[in-house]
Order: sequence, then structure tokens, then C-alpha cells
Amino acid sequence: MRGRTIDRLPTLAGMTTTRSVLASQATDYPRWFQDVIAKAELADNGPVRGTMVVRPYGYGIWELLQEAMNRRIKATGAENAYFPLLIPESYLQREAEHVEGFSPELAVVTHAGGKQLEEPAVIRPTSETVIGEYMAKWIQSYRDLPLLLNQWANAVRWELRPRLFLRTTEFLWQEGHTAHATFEDARAYATKVLYDVYRDVMVNVLAIPVTPGRKTRRERFAGAINTMTLEAMTGDGKALQMCTSHELGQNFARAFDINYLSSDGERELAWTTSWGSTTRMVGGLIMVHGDDAGLRVPPTVAPIQVVVLAVRDETVEAAQRIVKDLEAAGLRVLVDDRTDQPFGRRAVNWELKGVPIRIELGPRDLAADAATVVRRLRDSTKTAVNLSELTSTVVNAIDADQAHLLEEATARHTARTTAVATVDEAVEAAAAGWASLPYAAIGEEGEDRLAESGMTVRCLQRPDGTLPLDETEPDLIAYVARSY
Amino acid sequence: MRGRTIDRLPTLAGMTTTRSVLASQATDYPRWFQDVIAKAELADNGPVRGTMVVRPYGYGIWELLQEAMNRRIKATGAENAYFPLLIPESYLQREAEHVEGFSPELAVVTHAGGKQLEEPAVIRPTSETVIGEYMAKWIQSYRDLPLLLNQWANAVRWELRPRLFLRTTEFLWQEGHTAHATFEDARAYATKVLYDVYRDVMVNVLAIPVTPGRKTRRERFAGAINTMTLEAMTGDGKALQMCTSHELGQNFARAFDINYLSSDGERELAWTTSWGSTTRMVGGLIMVHGDDAGLRVPPTVAPIQVVVLAVRDETVEAAQRIVKDLEAAGLRVLVDDRTDQPFGRRAVNWELKGVPIRIELGPRDLAADAATVVRRLRDSTKTAVNLSELTSTVVNAIDADQAHLLEEATARHTARTTAVATVDEAVEAAAAGWASLPYAAIGEEGEDRLAESGMTVRCLQRPDGTLPLDETEPDLIAYVARSY
Repeated sequence: MRGRTIDRLPTLAGMTTTRSVLASQATDYPRWFQDVIAKAELADNGPVRGTMVVRPYGYGIWELLQEAMNRRIKATGAENAYFPLLIPESYLQREAEHVEGFSPELAVVTHAGGKQLEEPAVIRPTSETVIGEYMAKWIQSYRDLPLLLNQWANAVRWELRPRLFLRTTEFLWQEGHTAHATFEDARAYATKVLYDVYRDVMVNVLAIPVTPGRKTRRERFAGAINTMTLEAMTGDGKALQMCTSHELGQNFARAFDINYLSSDGERELAWTTSWGSTTRMVGGLIMVHGDDAGLRVPPTVAPIQVVVLAVRDETVEAAQRIVKDLEAAGLRVLVDDRTDQPFGRRAVNWELKGVPIRIELGPRDLAADAATVVRRLRDSTKTAVNLSELTSTVVNAIDADQAHLLEEATARHTARTTAVATVDEAVEAAAAGWASLPYAAIGEEGEDRLAESGMTVRCLQRPDGTLPLDETEPDLIAYVARSY
Repeated sequence: MRGRTIDRLPTLAGMTTTRSVLASQATDYPRWFQDVIAKAELADNGPVRGTMVVRPYGYGIWELLQEAMNRRIKATGAENAYFPLLIPESYLQREAEHVEGFSPELAVVTHAGGKQLEEPAVIRPTSETVIGEYMAKWIQSYRDLPLLLNQWANAVRWELRPRLFLRTTEFLWQEGHTAHATFEDARAYATKVLYDVYRDVMVNVLAIPVTPGRKTRRERFAGAINTMTLEAMTGDGKALQMCTSHELGQNFARAFDINYLSSDGERELAWTTSWGSTTRMVGGLIMVHGDDAGLRVPPTVAPIQVVVLAVRDETVEAAQRIVKDLEAAGLRVLVDDRTDQPFGRRAVNWELKGVPIRIELGPRDLAADAATVVRRLRDSTKTAVNLSELTSTVVNAIDADQAHLLEEATARHTARTTAVATVDEAVEAAAAGWASLPYAAIGEEGEDRLAESGMTVRCLQRPDGTLPLDETEPDLIAYVARSY
């Protein structure tokens, strides 16, 4: 990977400790988030308000995440396809709730090819409508079901308060769209995606613990009969919706006439689902794992898992040998041989970028036939490791530290969730973390009061943690929090 | 792969031979092209004029092609990133030739979030301008060079005569953008991409022979000082530009102030390049390899390399065993066990889709401990192969047929290219194929006359086949053809 990000050191204004480079999480968390994104070279603001430039280091994380997600999506039997960016404005009108929900966020193309368009086209905010149109064409009989489609694409929603990765007017995502013969099949598939695809990626790839649940009516996707979510807890105790899986009932099937001939010759309306996950997941990774020294990237999605720093010219050759050994062990490794630049500044750069393992190789280390290993995902204390044990030590550390990140995040997720009984107690508890309380204690009016305090019901669960079939089930638990 | 495209048979109106399903290439080539795309379920027209829906089978080919291209792009040291879809209109104004070339094709967003935008945003037709803006920010000193970026994205150009895959208003592509310290570095890199990335993919992945060359001034990319191209010959003897690599000189560096501090402390303007390849390559694959029976997909990019047809219920189990063996050999295999549907129709479907190898398994085959192998990329004659030799036979056939496709296409490319001496002779020869003649015999005025006959100079080469440093070199050969 030599010759890549390596040559471009962010300007740290000569600082050699990150403290002075980043705002601290405690004093100004939002500012810390922005600082990390800038200093770790993850992304920049785009020229059109709310858009984002994803820089190579940030995109490298996204590529690895995409790969992991894509593999799991295909394992459910879904196939990738691609539908147009531009949707006739009239398509959105066909599903009443849908158009009402998305109209305020639409970007509209009125002119093209030097002329005004007869019908304006909107840039897809999501593709249920255009995909529904084609599902109707492609689905003839029960043989054609289930139809399981997914696409990797960009989408545009004009955001009032854009924030890099979390809420950008243009974002990258995968959006899955499926059609089924029955309500039960659709529900089963939407649920399978939530757990087997999304939760598996969040927990086992991003090392992010999540709370699965059902959204309340007011938090539901526009046009859905049920929205399921995975909610993560950020470093400052807020909630971040990591993805959603929707049961669309027959709403879009009715609007786009997606019907099929059943095995006993009846014309039936199909049942559809949609589900999506976006570049926001990278924002989640930053907020869940980052610390005052910068980013911390889980090894599974780290473009650079190990960086080997040659402290002096005379150690460059040995550093390159170490890189070869580690690459042979299947790791993604980079050598930093910029010996003409201050060592401290280079070290800080890799700390900021959250590279899991940093190996420092100086003349003294080499004389002792050893190298200094710094585990960024732990406490960054330095350990001298004999060169003969270096590869095995690093391989074990990588696995252990991936697990460590998840444990750390899980401990916080649990510790900062307080069980309460009333909305007032929930408002108090959710000022510093999450509150869980009986949904019965909230109700419509309770959701209004939470809104006044800048809080929402993030999701509903049964007491055993499973998902309710509807909001009217007794004994439902509601998770309440402030959110990004 | 069971449960994927398999359940969706295109409606062949009960026909069991493709002749009646497709127009023949000889009688109506453009119609044949459309028919193949529809019947092989590669793509559909989108709802907004000129847009395209890439269906799973077509997208499966694109994914494999992308993978092969992406690997080679990264091998040159380039990193993937992502830049915004929407570009401020003013950015395009900064490079005079660029805006002049692209203005007629722009799609413009004038309204967003329910309001009129202060400055209209255009949907990227290509990203030199927005990427130039960020290169200027990121490049400080010679240490930051070369900056090698690539993005996989969609782009929109409002086409007057759209055609699926070949010229769609929205297309998918990779666009590479690089900045270098010197003219020589930029030229060397743009040339490396043309040969090591693009030609390698065309020839060794798509099995498409290409003629590399330099575009004449009038065919050049808007804003480039040199455009290099790879031209393929379609089944009807026309030319198809498969990709381009541009030297942009200092035009965009000047427009966006991309400068760097040289090692001896001087401020210098950078030299930039850009290079792209699009979903048009899939159109090229169809046109170069397709025949009257439908598509023929090179094994390297075939989503399904082998289909095993169980003729009757009693052979399904044996068919599944064969699939397991072939998958174990690393092949992409599908079982067709739709024994309730006419065998002929199923066979025609796989022929249409151009699956390289079809294995038919009927009771009689099984009784003889054999299977019938049909090689679509050859003559589709049927051979009985003993089950014990089936896997090795198929593996060898796959490799041999990939090579065979390239030989076949190369033979046509050569046979239908005629060396001539004058523009008149070129016009005559290019009515049925390509003409090659001395560029000196054409000149500005000659290009006008070719244009009148619907022909263009596709590219210029030196007599030894290498690329000229400019158009004024003596003895240049010009390739003339009609084109898509």
C-alpha cells in the first residue's frame, strides 16, 4: 500500500499531541466529531450545501463495510440490480403517505439538454416507486415470487441540518426491495434482513452493539406498515439509527399494481418490503469507537490494520521485511518510511486515523532484535516484542482488540441505559443516556412531551427483547433517547 | 445460485427456437441488439427518457467486470474516493472548452427542499471540475504528488439519441482523476492506464480485441490536450469507443489553481489526467460476441458459467450432484430443475442468456452414466460426456472457449479492416467495416467529408502501432469507421 495515503500527512500545525488537535469529547462532542473527520482525512464538505466528499481513507472503510454487507445480502438470495437516479415526479404522487413524507426533501431537475422538461424529474430520495413500477412488469405469476432485489446507489434528501456522514443531502447506501406472495413471507424476510444481515454486520463487523426494535407510528417510514430498526449508542449517550427494514404491506403493490397469478389461478396483490443502510454507518463507527486521541477503526473494516513506522533511515529495510511477514499473514499493512518528518507527528497521525496496531522500529529496538507494538484499540501503551514473535503477537492482538471494542461499547450501552417508570423520569435519565420504560406509560401524549425535550422513542421491544407484531401488544418496553 | 434468475423465465410466447424470438443480425442489427437486451433480461428502458434499468443478469456481468477493472486500477496505485453528484453550475464555467462541450448535455437541479436554489446545481456529466477543486485543497507540496484518485459512480449526460448500454442519459462508470508534478509523469500515467488497466480488461477479461490510438483534435475530450482511446469492432463492422484516457495538461490545474511547492521551493502548476470506462462496455460485449441465437458471455464475466438442466424429475438429484462438483472446481453454476416447464423453452432461454456451458441431463444420459454438454461459445453442438470426466471437461472447455471468443473477434477485427490510400476509398471500405489510411491523406477537410458519410477518424497510430506524441508526426495511420 506504499505510495497511498502515506505521502499525505494532514497539517497538524506542528503539534505532536492530538489533545491540541481535537476538541475533547467531554467539552464539545459535535466539534470533536467534525475534528476527527477532518484530521483523520475521512471526508470534506462538498461545494453544494450538505453534500460530502468521501476521502480515500474514509472510502476505504466504506468499501470493506460494503463488501461485508453485500456478501450477507446475497446470502439471503437477493440479487443486485440498478434503477435510475431520476424518477418522474408523478411516481411519488401515487402513494399518499410516501409523497407527503418525502416532498419537503426532494431535489428536482426541471431543465435538461438545454430545455425545460415536460415533467420534472426528482432525484431518488429512495426507490420504492420506480422499483415498484418494474416489479409490476416483471412479476406475472407466483413462480416469480419472491422477487428479491438490492441496489448500491446514491440518493438525495435535502436536509435542513446536514452533518457529515450522519445526515448528508447526498448519501451512499444499499436499498433492498422485495415482493412476496403473502404478508407472512414479507414479514419473515424483512425480519431476516434485520437480524441476519444488519445486526450481524453491526455487531461482528463494526463491533457496534445495537438495540433492535419496532418504530412507533410517528417514527415509521412514509408508506410502511412497520419499520424495524437497529439503534446504537454514541459516545455521548445519544441514539443513532444504524439501518431500517420496512414492511410496506400492500401499499406500494396497490399504488403500482404489483400483482401475480396465484397457483390456483387467482389475481393477488403482492406484499413488499424495503430496507436500507447508508454511509451513516461510518458516522456510527466514529461516534461509537472514537476517543480523545481520534478515530479507532475495528480491524475488520480497517483499510490499514497495521502501520510499521521506521523511526530512522537505518531501520527502513527492517521495517519493510516486517511488512512482508505481516502481509503474508493476511493483514493489511502500510510502511511509514517518512524519516525526514518528525516521528512524533507521524505517530500522532496514525493515532488520529485509528490504525489498530502501530509498530515502531528504531535503532535501539533493532539492536535488541525487537520492535515496539502500540495497540490503539486498547490503551496505546507500548510493548517491546521480539521480532521472532512479532507476527503471531500482532495477529492475536488484532482479533483480541476487535472483540475488545465490542465489549467496551457493549458495557457503555448497558451502563448508560436506565430503566424508569414514567415519562418524567425518562426525560431526566435520557439527558445523559438512554431510558427504558413501559410503552404503556408513554402513549401519544407522552411522545409529544418527549419531543419537547428533544427526545424520541427510538424503538419498542417485548420484555424478552424480541420484536412485537404491533404496537398494541401489552407490556412493550420503549427505549427513549436524544438522537443524531 | 438456485432461487435466483432461475425462477423467472422470460415470456418467449411459447417459441422454442430463438430465430423467431430475435431479429437476425443480418437483417436488422440495431433491432437484434434491442431484442437480445430484452430477451436475455439484461436491461429495460427507464421511465425518464434515455435512462436505463439494469436487471440482475446484466448487473451480474457488470459486477464481475467492475471487480476486474477495480483490481487493476488499484494496482496502479490509485485509491477510490467519492465526490458529490451535484456540482455548482459556476464550476463548469471555469474551463472554457469544458463548459462549451458539456453545456448542451447537462441536467440541472433548480429546486430543492421546496425552494428555488440560489445557484443551480448540475448533475455531474463528469467530475474534473469538482475534483479539481479538492485537489487544489489537498495538494500542498511535491510530497503530495502524484495524487491518484478513482471513483465508481453514476453520471448524467442528456443524450439526443439514447440507446441502452451504449448511450444512456444516466450511466454507471469509473472515472479516474490524477495530478502529477510534470507533463511527462502525467503522460506516462495516462498511457499506463490505457494499456495496463483498460486494454488488459478488454482483451483478457471481455475477450474483445481493441485498437489503441490517439483521437484527432475534433474528437478530443472537452478540456483535454490529448485523448487516447481503445476502439472495438462490433458485429456489424462499426466502431465502438470502449474507454478513454485523457491528458488534461494544465488546463484544469489553471482553472482550479492546483499548484504545489516544488522540492526547490517554487510554486508550480500540476498536470492532471482523467480516464473513464462505463456500462457501455456491456454493450460492447453484446455487440462483439452476440450471435443470432442471442448473447454469448465470456466465462470471466459470466454470472452463470454453467447451467445444469434436469430434463425430468428423476434426474434432478443427479443434476444437483453435478452442480456441487462443478462449484467445488470454482465455477459459477446454476441448476435448472423447472421440469414442469417445456425443456426446449428452457434450453432456448439459456442460449439467449449466453451461458457458456449448458449441461443437459435426461434419463437416457443418466442410464449411460453420461451427460450432454453444449458449448454455447462454439457451435452449440451436443457432446455426450462420461460423468467421471465431466468436471475436467467443463473446466477445460471454459478456458478454451474464453480464448476462442477472443480469436473469433480478433479474426473479424482484422478481416474487416481494409488498408486504403484515399478518403474516397476509405468511405467505400468503411461502409462494411473499418478503413486504415495515411492520416496525411485526410486532414481537416477530409474529416469533414467523412462526417458527411456518417464516418469519423476513430484514432491515429504510428505505423508500428504505438501512440503518437501529437497529430503532426509524419506517417500516422488513421482508422476510419462508422460508429455507435
